[in-house]
Amino acid sequence: MPFIELAALAEMQRVPGFHGRFIHTENVTFSYWRIEKNALLPSHRHPHEQITVVIEGKLELTVDGETRVLERGQNGSGPPTIAVIPPNGEHGGKALTGCVVIDVFYPVREDYRSVAR
Amino acid sequence: MPFIELAALAEMQRVPGFHGRFIHTENVTFSYWRIEKNALLPSHRHPHEQITVVIEGKLELTVDGETRVLERGQNGSGPPTIAVIPPNGEHGGKALTGCVVIDVFYPVREDYRSVAR
Repeated sequence: MPFIELAALAEMQRVPGFHGRFIHTENVTFSYWRIEKNALLPSHRHPHEQITVVIEGKLELTVDGETRVLERGQNGSGPPTIAVIPPNGEHGGKALTGCVVIDVFYPVREDYRSVAR
Repeated sequence: MPFIELAALAEMQRVPGFHGRFIHTENVTFSYWRIEKNALLPSHRHPHEQITVVIEGKLELTVDGETRVLERGQNGSGPPTIAVIPPNGEHGGKALTGCVVIDVFYPVREDYRSVAR
């Protein structure tokens, strides 16, 4: 089954206001997040590499002490700024608006397997 | 440098009409594609796992003989359908409209390293 409808997967609230859908391949976890305005991501770290892309909205993200507001490019279009979080990089943030965000992790987030494939 | 401005990276045209920007981490290649309407992706395969997400537009994609039109959810919003292409899965397609598409590869696409980091 090469095609997966995200809309058919259950959402899982990992942190208050962060509603995620997850796809796990052999090596990678793909996450699609719907984030409520003003939701806070407490600062944390994990051994996985992480790539974060904002598709909609504005997400303030701090990685290893550096802070940036991520959004979908100038005036809402154009290529966005991407966060590349290294293994064990400390990161946290706040949704300045409602957001849609994609995260990619390597290796698989085994702790995200429990709810939805 | 945990933040990378995609807009500052050079676009690389890998296939006519497919303009990509690439970020390589230790293990993963992240690609952000601007695709011209009617551009064709010839059927091909590679040993990398691939995840494909359409952010804008409509991309017809065939993976291992199964065809789907990928787009950004119903009425252009909501969670999209994701393609998960297994190692050596044959895939090709056509941009039915102008598209913005994200691909994630594991392991790194060494053949994409040549132009932009």
